[in-house]
Amino acid sequence: MSGNSFGRCFVVTTFGESHGPAIGGVVDGCPPGLELSEADLQRDLDRRKPGQSRHTTQRRESDRVQILSGVFEGRTTGTPIGLLIHNEDQRSRDYDELADRYRPGHADYTYEQKYGLRDYRGGGRSSARETAVRVAAGAIAKKYLAVRLGVQIRGYLSQLGSIRPKVFDWEEVERNPFFWPCAETVPELERYMDALRKEGNSIGAAVAVVATGVPPGLGEPVFDRLDADIAHALMGINAVKGVEIGAGFACIEQKGTEHRDELTTEGFLSNNAGGILGGISTGQDIVARIALKPTSSFRLPGRTVRRDGMAVEVITKGRHDPCVGIRATPIAEAMLALVLMDHYLRHRAQNADVTPPLAPIPSAPRREV
Amino acid sequence: MSGNSFGRCFVVTTFGESHGPAIGGVVDGCPPGLELSEADLQRDLDRRKPGQSRHTTQRRESDRVQILSGVFEGRTTGTPIGLLIHNEDQRSRDYDELADRYRPGHADYTYEQKYGLRDYRGGGRSSARETAVRVAAGAIAKKYLAVRLGVQIRGYLSQLGSIRPKVFDWEEVERNPFFWPCAETVPELERYMDALRKEGNSIGAAVAVVATGVPPGLGEPVFDRLDADIAHALMGINAVKGVEIGAGFACIEQKGTEHRDELTTEGFLSNNAGGILGGISTGQDIVARIALKPTSSFRLPGRTVRRDGMAVEVITKGRHDPCVGIRATPIAEAMLALVLMDHYLRHRAQNADVTPPLAPIPSAPRREV
Amino acid sequence: MSGNSFGRCFVVTTFGESHGPAIGGVVDGCPPGLELSEADLQRDLDRRKPGQSRHTTQRRESDRVQILSGVFEGRTTGTPIGLLIHNEDQRSRDYDELADRYRPGHADYTYEQKYGLRDYRGGGRSSARETAVRVAAGAIAKKYLAVRLGVQIRGYLSQLGSIRPKVFDWEEVERNPFFWPCAETVPELERYMDALRKEGNSIGAAVAVVATGVPPGLGEPVFDRLDADIAHALMGINAVKGVEIGAGFACIEQKGTEHRDELTTEGFLSNNAGGILGGISTGQDIVARIALKPTSSFRLPGRTVRRDGMAVEVITKGRHDPCVGIRATPIAEAMLALVLMDHYLRHRAQNADVTPPLAPIPSAPRREV
Amino acid sequence: MSGNSFGRCFVVTTFGESHGPAIGGVVDGCPPGLELSEADLQRDLDRRKPGQSRHTTQRRESDRVQILSGVFEGRTTGTPIGLLIHNEDQRSRDYDELADRYRPGHADYTYEQKYGLRDYRGGGRSSARETAVRVAAGAIAKKYLAVRLGVQIRGYLSQLGSIRPKVFDWEEVERNPFFWPCAETVPELERYMDALRKEGNSIGAAVAVVATGVPPGLGEPVFDRLDADIAHALMGINAVKGVEIGAGFACIEQKGTEHRDELTTEGFLSNNAGGILGGISTGQDIVARIALKPTSSFRLPGRTVRRDGMAVEVITKGRHDPCVGIRATPIAEAMLALVLMDHYLRHRAQNADVTPPLAPIPSAPRREV
Repeated sequence: MSGNSFGRCFVVTTFGESHGPAIGGVVDGCPPGLELSEADLQRDLDRRKPGQSRHTTQRRESDRVQILSGVFEGRTTGTPIGLLIHNEDQRSRDYDELADRYRPGHADYTYEQKYGLRDYRGGGRSSARETAVRVAAGAIAKKYLAVRLGVQIRGYLSQLGSIRPKVFDWEEVERNPFFWPCAETVPELERYMDALRKEGNSIGAAVAVVATGVPPGLGEPVFDRLDADIAHALMGINAVKGVEIGAGFACIEQKGTEHRDELTTEGFLSNNAGGILGGISTGQDIVARIALKPTSSFRLPGRTVRRDGMAVEVITKGRHDPCVGIRATPIAEAMLALVLMDHYLRHRAQNADVTPPLAPIPSAPRREV
Repeated sequence: MSGNSFGRCFVVTTFGESHGPAIGGVVDGCPPGLELSEADLQRDLDRRKPGQSRHTTQRRESDRVQILSGVFEGRTTGTPIGLLIHNEDQRSRDYDELADRYRPGHADYTYEQKYGLRDYRGGGRSSARETAVRVAAGAIAKKYLAVRLGVQIRGYLSQLGSIRPKVFDWEEVERNPFFWPCAETVPELERYMDALRKEGNSIGAAVAVVATGVPPGLGEPVFDRLDADIAHALMGINAVKGVEIGAGFACIEQKGTEHRDELTTEGFLSNNAGGILGGISTGQDIVARIALKPTSSFRLPGRTVRRDGMAVEVITKGRHDPCVGIRATPIAEAMLALVLMDHYLRHRAQNADVTPPLAPIPSAPRREV
Repeated sequence: MSGNSFGRCFVVTTFGESHGPAIGGVVDGCPPGLELSEADLQRDLDRRKPGQSRHTTQRRESDRVQILSGVFEGRTTGTPIGLLIHNEDQRSRDYDELADRYRPGHADYTYEQKYGLRDYRGGGRSSARETAVRVAAGAIAKKYLAVRLGVQIRGYLSQLGSIRPKVFDWEEVERNPFFWPCAETVPELERYMDALRKEGNSIGAAVAVVATGVPPGLGEPVFDRLDADIAHALMGINAVKGVEIGAGFACIEQKGTEHRDELTTEGFLSNNAGGILGGISTGQDIVARIALKPTSSFRLPGRTVRRDGMAVEVITKGRHDPCVGIRATPIAEAMLALVLMDHYLRHRAQNADVTPPLAPIPSAPRREV
Repeated sequence: MSGNSFGRCFVVTTFGESHGPAIGGVVDGCPPGLELSEADLQRDLDRRKPGQSRHTTQRRESDRVQILSGVFEGRTTGTPIGLLIHNEDQRSRDYDELADRYRPGHADYTYEQKYGLRDYRGGGRSSARETAVRVAAGAIAKKYLAVRLGVQIRGYLSQLGSIRPKVFDWEEVERNPFFWPCAETVPELERYMDALRKEGNSIGAAVAVVATGVPPGLGEPVFDRLDADIAHALMGINAVKGVEIGAGFACIEQKGTEHRDELTTEGFLSNNAGGILGGISTGQDIVARIALKPTSSFRLPGRTVRRDGMAVEVITKGRHDPCVGIRATPIAEAMLALVLMDHYLRHRAQNADVTPPLAPIPSAPRREV
């Protein structure tokens, strides 16, 4: 009800504030028998963690995750997996002057309208720090999906401001600090980000995530379609303002003959659907893209109001990402993994004994977004 | 789990297939004491129902809704509201030849992969006919929100293919069969649709929905943000491939100074946020836009496969909407109403006794999308 | 949230009041491919329906159930099953004088405290009439459990006032109007009930339900243990004041050596556990017993208060069961079926691919309660 | 789905095994602004913790709870409250020989049937050690209910084997290590327990819990009646085999004239209902009683089978409670508090603005069970 749990069968609950002693969570519903260690989670946590380059926040967190339960002799037991990450590098004093004023573009005002009070240190619960737990939980889902079903989930930064990749190469994505699929344009990104940092401003971005090898049949009509739940998951990431699946907003100008993905015995001929028809996976690549707003945490002054109703100016100190889209890639991957894992288990509940009349149709090549 | 219920506090469950005897549903959680009659539901059902102009499907359904329970002496009692709508104009024979083949761009293939069998008459459960029940349930939410909180929810067709309105006028929206906010361009729409019908093709569209007068504080961090739940609700409408809130995908190219909505004592100075910050309503207009794909139900032949794996051609007979976006407007309004109603009750559970330190900041003029 | 749905995977939602036009419901999550017709539901509805003998209420309801969706060509499709039962024999005028007073032992007072108003005709939503829908839904679960898993669910009246069966014979249960397992004591029951009816009073009773052939492994630690969910299901039946599993309250005076059910390779040596250990089914018979209060609907006057706070006397007219325990047997069976069905699907979600190291231990003979 | 969360609005999720590094949990949905510190939780944890007298297990755990989030400057913020309790005194070697055999009366066999593997150290997740987290979470609910609504929740041991209290005095309950309401019979209990310990056996017990000052109107018909949810909560405590409300099983032999609680303007004249009518609280004391089985952890050998199917004898070493009923009192109080808190918030969601026509009727004196 209060929104800190995600999923129905593979349920992730998170807790923790930016400047409290620790963040953590519980993963309930993981099937038993999966080989799992903290190292499996750490890899994605390290991809997300701050301070990896000069282009992200300089807060230093080792983001070491502890597994407190649910794993015995190297395997999951089917009982809940308790996760804990200690906060280390807090500078709460940076936030003292925000106690009585609402930063524009932030959740300060809305939290106080909702709860009557708020933990103002570093945004408290509204900080993207919470997403570290999602990444840890998502890594468990990713591992299960990979090991048991052969599903691979990957993401990349697909646009930063008006900069777009010129070519696309999955291999490049992990070779630069931007999760950028095009080596040629990395220097352009670096120059842009350096200028932006000097300016003290921030910029929007887009991230794409792709799941390959998803079995057909996942997703529940009519309300919990796979695409609806992906939209819920991705729009629930801090700063996201838009989600599209497959052809997405481009479909507005498409005709039916152009959009529909015809089927042959060799496979689908296109993937405008983004791997989902009628809310259920087709077996093609699932392709989603999100728009992330420019963060409102930067040092250029802005107009706002105080707790007592007075108009004031505010400058956001603290250490922040000038483009939150960069570190969002592993978070988006994690959320997509959580949705697919959850729907796989949901599907199994009702349909574990179904044999479809037709063998799955081969998946067509992915549509790049 | 099987996805036929929506909401946590104001829970709508629907049942029914396109060509079964009836569709219907249950609304559980409506507060008691609300004046309610079938006429309150019928108004929106009539806006959605087929056959209202030559530009939508010619299936004739009166879509008369019956309230079977939960209302006593003209008021809701707090017990579940049973809803029933009989199907009247079914031509199931139109679908006989689809029993063994999967229309491209349809849920035929995915339903059969999921369940092993399917009701192929008119798409069965995957038909948009099911949305009539959502509209009926949404009308209850709309009425509560209007009467008790002063919230107004409206939608319009914001793009059809490449045609966009030239001017914007709420008054126009209900004066033409397209929910189109611009009288000047209606003839252009009509010509386009007439040509499309002759061609036998279909076209995509965009719909915008706006909620005015929403109290601040609605929405639950971190997973069930108001925008995340709106995305879930709207992406769960048949044919929707994208959802954006406020500035939406345009935020990718915005800088922070441009995007953040500054606050003054007279109100917010802009509404790039679309009325939601940190997943919680600000009190500004909530603004969402969706992209609807061109339906795959049209009479131009397409390649597909049969149940036995053979490649064949298929033509979709039956009576269909060449632009499903047109009738989607009342559906999108209904879904937004259901989200807001549900979050209002969710909010009340935890925070019924909260007094925020600051009176709500006046709402700035709506950002047209 | 408002409590009109039951289950997580096999979800039953009911609607309807005693004196409205109809009662009904939705079953969501039934696996596809199950052969199902209205006749499968009618058998248990007929066992529950009023007017079967002079010992139950004389209200005449045919209780004909219609399946409105979710079944195609004689098989379930995996989509929601809509159920409808029209109310036929309402005498709402019997209740006019109850509009302003609260019958003692009834929900009149509590409904009005909760909702501020109530449908007073025949108890409205609080009437046991609603349980007809549970019986219909339970019949679907019963059929699946029987056909696919070989589970048999049966119940009987195990005590009426101070009368207990002298011998136990399952064959007798369906041969008398009391669901009584002992032919010899049926005349005693009839004499008692005739005298009670003349007196105008009511009496309590106990019902036992037994599930045979349940696979081991069903039930979710720690909160949703199988026994906890059975307790929830059975205590949720109108008039139930107590639930026990296996040895039940008798275990208070047992020592550990007496209570623990030892295991041998031939099976468990006893069944004090009632088929459940650590909240998970053992494979033995699941045995539960419930206590049902004497109904408060009878014609002897009682003290109460009016809506305006005045003290008055009240007599409950209308047609009522002098022992609600009698017709409770099929309801208790239905609820047990719903719990087992739901937990079977829940179990499958997480553990569909588990192979236990040891073949299930044979089930010991049932412990009669 | 996997059963490690409790509640809908005030949601408690627990994790942790008996012999892992820590146990803990998350409380989601606590209203903001409640004064809360670790000391508020510690009091009940100390009442439950082992080693308080020679009559309970000699495992030494300080059971110090840490609040990791959700509290800022001494008040709850409305965000999730993370709880952590480190395990300290584990002697896992005591359990090595249980790795391959199933103790009779324990969850060993059922866990392995369900999950295919199990953490055998001290019962793993099935250990009552997990209930420490419930007690911590329950203390938060208790505090809210007391401070904001004036509800008091208390429990006591109402029977141990065949020993019953001779007189009842709430004052005595916290003065002896048994939560026993009768000073006169405490020596009898001590002698009995000393003899039992020498014998190496265990004994059953009964615990009663009472909530005073509960507002009328809590509870949701039809499935989530307040009594149904109390039954779920209490039957979900380790070792519980029966639950009764108010008159409970005694109602089987009651007549209607005896059972119904008549109302006068001075209050109800009796409380056979145990404070609940039609599943909704009346405002009278809520009274529930549970039966706890004799633990199967004791040192007298018993027959069982091994993982490989061989018949063997087993002796349970380790340190155990010869009567688990004794320490169950604070656990039962906690579970009742969680149910009431959850239903208070659920009620508020739908009915926050209801004004009942009649002021609540005064509560009659509690019926002692």
